[in-house]
Amino acid sequence: MFEKLPLLLFSVILAISGLRGCSAAYSYTTQWINVPVDHFSFANNDTFKLRYLKNDSFAFEPDSAVILFYAGNEGDIELFAQNTGFMWDAVADHSNRLNAELIFAEHSRYYGQSLPYGNKSYNSAKELGYLSSEQALADFASLLQEINPGNRRPVVAIGGSYGGMLAAWFRMKYPHMVLGAIAASAPVLQFRNITPCGVYNRILTSVFSTAYSNECSDNIRKSWAVLRSQSETDAGRALITRKFHLCANLTKHEDIGDLIDYLNDMYSNLAMANYPYPADFLAPLPAYPVREFCWRLKGKNLNDTQLVESLAEAVSVYSNYTNKVKCLDVKTSTTDALGTRGWDFQSCTEMVMPMCSDGDKDMFEPEQWDFKKYSDDCFKKFGVRPRSEFEMITRYGGYQIDSATNIVFSNGLLDPWSGAGVLRTPNNRIKIVIIPEGAHHIDLRAKNDKDPQSVRAARQIHINTIKEWLSQN
Amino acid sequence: MFEKLPLLLFSVILAISGLRGCSAAYSYTTQWINVPVDHFSFANNDTFKLRYLKNDSFAFEPDSAVILFYAGNEGDIELFAQNTGFMWDAVADHSNRLNAELIFAEHSRYYGQSLPYGNKSYNSAKELGYLSSEQALADFASLLQEINPGNRRPVVAIGGSYGGMLAAWFRMKYPHMVLGAIAASAPVLQFRNITPCGVYNRILTSVFSTAYSNECSDNIRKSWAVLRSQSETDAGRALITRKFHLCANLTKHEDIGDLIDYLNDMYSNLAMANYPYPADFLAPLPAYPVREFCWRLKGKNLNDTQLVESLAEAVSVYSNYTNKVKCLDVKTSTTDALGTRGWDFQSCTEMVMPMCSDGDKDMFEPEQWDFKKYSDDCFKKFGVRPRSEFEMITRYGGYQIDSATNIVFSNGLLDPWSGAGVLRTPNNRIKIVIIPEGAHHIDLRAKNDKDPQSVRAARQIHINTIKEWLSQN
Repeated sequence: MFEKLPLLLFSVILAISGLRGCSAAYSYTTQWINVPVDHFSFANNDTFKLRYLKNDSFAFEPDSAVILFYAGNEGDIELFAQNTGFMWDAVADHSNRLNAELIFAEHSRYYGQSLPYGNKSYNSAKELGYLSSEQALADFASLLQEINPGNRRPVVAIGGSYGGMLAAWFRMKYPHMVLGAIAASAPVLQFRNITPCGVYNRILTSVFSTAYSNECSDNIRKSWAVLRSQSETDAGRALITRKFHLCANLTKHEDIGDLIDYLNDMYSNLAMANYPYPADFLAPLPAYPVREFCWRLKGKNLNDTQLVESLAEAVSVYSNYTNKVKCLDVKTSTTDALGTRGWDFQSCTEMVMPMCSDGDKDMFEPEQWDFKKYSDDCFKKFGVRPRSEFEMITRYGGYQIDSATNIVFSNGLLDPWSGAGVLRTPNNRIKIVIIPEGAHHIDLRAKNDKDPQSVRAARQIHINTIKEWLSQN
Repeated sequence: MFEKLPLLLFSVILAISGLRGCSAAYSYTTQWINVPVDHFSFANNDTFKLRYLKNDSFAFEPDSAVILFYAGNEGDIELFAQNTGFMWDAVADHSNRLNAELIFAEHSRYYGQSLPYGNKSYNSAKELGYLSSEQALADFASLLQEINPGNRRPVVAIGGSYGGMLAAWFRMKYPHMVLGAIAASAPVLQFRNITPCGVYNRILTSVFSTAYSNECSDNIRKSWAVLRSQSETDAGRALITRKFHLCANLTKHEDIGDLIDYLNDMYSNLAMANYPYPADFLAPLPAYPVREFCWRLKGKNLNDTQLVESLAEAVSVYSNYTNKVKCLDVKTSTTDALGTRGWDFQSCTEMVMPMCSDGDKDMFEPEQWDFKKYSDDCFKKFGVRPRSEFEMITRYGGYQIDSATNIVFSNGLLDPWSGAGVLRTPNNRIKIVIIPEGAHHIDLRAKNDKDPQSVRAARQIHINTIKEWLSQN
């Protein structure tokens, strides 16, 4: 179960930030440049068309405008352009605005419309193998070389989640191309031999313990055994099917696995999107959805039936807040959309993010991090295995980033990924922003009247820091 | 003619630094590790064995010893281990010694014994395509991860010429793995759109103008037309054949081309190896070989025959200083040894180093930099063409390296490559060492009683700077 988490969470983030039900609030032109499929070798000299979005209409002094460069994540770049209101506010908000041009660069490969081998891009490791973070960074460098020759104008990279990792790494690896980076909720330490595998689930548990009362996480912790034991009997399966309004009846014991996977994903998603205002993602969500969820799962000493009932009601906050969903399809979150497949592949090569749980310090079923199984699964799926366990430390430094400068790492303490974020500065040129009331990269979202003070302050720090970098340039 | 220069010079450097006639003064153990052929993608998951040499016997406090890490160039690493006396002196010289372990890493691929595809490594771009500077840097990173897990001990990278470029770039791209870099005679600016193509040949000319008298470069400048006109007649060809002791008679006009190529290479080689003591390279050379050469080519208003005679005598300083060579084989310098082929390929992909001459500010035949021809030649040879003209600027920054720290760039002013070295520091964390009396990376050679003061001083700066980095670590 948990070995799936790292494969899925990031693509879920995508959906969270996604366009579904969201009007296209911001406009841009779509452009393309040709880049090599392989920037680092010459055995394959193919090129492909990389997409980027541009809006320079806000730059009031175009010749000196800073380029705010969104480092695209694992998905369609239009989703990110529409859901990174911070960048649009930065140029449009008259009290505080930057003289800036906006660029949103697709990942830049294998997501959205930037497919190196078109429909065949996902056929096998032969085509898919050029999907890697270093290649994406080199795409960004090629793109900037093209649109900002000679690095004549200053560039600031901005990204959230995996995009935040890329933004930070881009500053580290190509500091001549980018003056600084705002890396929001970037779990750059979520790799083997760095962050303990249980941290993520402990933070997640703490979010569910404190949103309303700790009865919530206690009941979640109990629920796994209840669901499994209920699924052993016809009556239990019927109860679960009925209460959860499952689209597909549970007909045998093993069927419970899909619901359990769904719930595991859901807890992550609720926490990441635990925003102070209603937001639209996989499904519409109320403000503070974890509190809404937990309020429905209160109570001590619930019996099995009560627990199933309460849990099912709580889940409806996530699955059916609008009351328009006829039944719960627990397989919807494990979609095989390209974005997910791409992240799956990245997770099987370099982005190995160990996850585990013990059922004691967290609310999940105990599950050890089993690298062998993980690697075998990867081999089955893609014919590849993760390389050296130190791969990402070797590549990007892990904790040893004291030579880096001009990066802001921001993390919300309500975000389970924050445990693998950079929370202490190694020097006076890297800024750390902690957002006690923040979920997953909320600081990159458009301003909202409901934003807590710590979120507003974070955005102000971002703007001030960019101005500081520009003034020192 | 000149379009060949950048292809050849670096492999000649190899030979200059080479073992020929040199006793193996230093000892080490030979070790191997497995590394991916392609560090940045996953379409090719082959691995190969990378060679490195190690001597930790000098470390007097092994647990805290710094690792002096030689970043191998385009050739057999044993050549570099034997010819980088600076590193051995640094650990063995008791007045001044570092507590250090020595590592010499083969390039780390396609040279010496580190051949990713064995004998087939050079078959085609399919096998050879993984020969690139970024892959080599990633090899170094993998090697250090293996021998210095967690970067527990400090590492200083050291390299000369292309190895110096790699040492500097390694610090830029992997600062978490290497505390600093000593980059000797590293022409990191010898790329398109950075250093003008004529700079190299002007410096080379100035070396030949000032070593004895400017009659030397004047006579060289005249010699090309004389050689070409003499080669038009039977008598002239016989004169040249006789005076130069050519192994193969000149039988037709076009045959002169090989001699002219040979001379062009020779001028570079003499200048690079213009050391103050006899040294052994392609052939044994006297101390200050350029002065020895120029002394034989003095004289004003020499007629054609006199010029041919004097030039031939001067050339013998380079070709036959020991008087043991029976005849001059002008094709020897263009050997097809693996090292040369490898550098040829690198020159055709990323290491494009424009060269040109005008016959006025330099002593060479006028020749423009003709990228189209260069690229066409590459395509004929390897089926590849250089990529973007900004490739190397995008990758490594060109002049824009002000974010880099802890690098010493040293350049000898007698070295024609110095014009593309970093001669001004962009910040207070990068040190520039100018060696007025220095030829090509002489500061990395073993100390010698004949070393001029500026060379001794450069080595002392290197040692002091390494100690300074260690003390700040």
